[in-house]
Amino acid sequence: MFGFSLRSRRKPAKQSAETARDRLQILLAHERSTGSGPDCLPELQRDILAAIKRHMKIDNDAVDIRMDRGDELSSLEINIEFPAAEPSR
Amino acid sequence: MFGFSLRSRRKPAKQSAETARDRLQILLAHERSTGSGPDCLPELQRDILAAIKRHMKIDNDAVDIRMDRGDELSSLEINIEFPAAEPSR
Repeated sequence: MFGFSLRSRRKPAKQSAETARDRLQILLAHERSTGSGPDCLPELQRDILAAIKRHMKIDNDAVDIRMDRGDELSSLEINIEFPAAEPSR
Repeated sequence: MFGFSLRSRRKPAKQSAETARDRLQILLAHERSTGSGPDCLPELQRDILAAIKRHMKIDNDAVDIRMDRGDELSSLEINIEFPAAEPSR
């Protein structure tokens, strides 16, 4: 499989309740051994974003999308920041 | 953001047309700065898989899912293998 590695970035300085931000990151990679066939990335991007919006309140401006499409390897990266959930009392 | 890095694995020895396999890998990470609030991973997993199945013919047995849920960081990894598309003539 792809060599994904997940490292959480260094935590920013103390975040006040107002500035606390949650982050959602999605990385999708489609490797095609014959170097042919559709990668369906645009459709997957649309449907994955719709799925996220069904469960989380996100602002379109806070969504950053990068797509890289090749014959054998296509990748999609979605980065979303949104206000942190209130700490449970 | 998370430090994702994407490395395509070393290509396997020559793949005959029958054994040629495409691979789709999805990595989702949700970092919650207040360490509270739902991560919605099960719902996102269900919806993302449904989105993939709308666009690609995949076999349930070929889907490998790993989920890791913490207070501040939850991650979901979906690995899918499926027969390669026919090379275009």
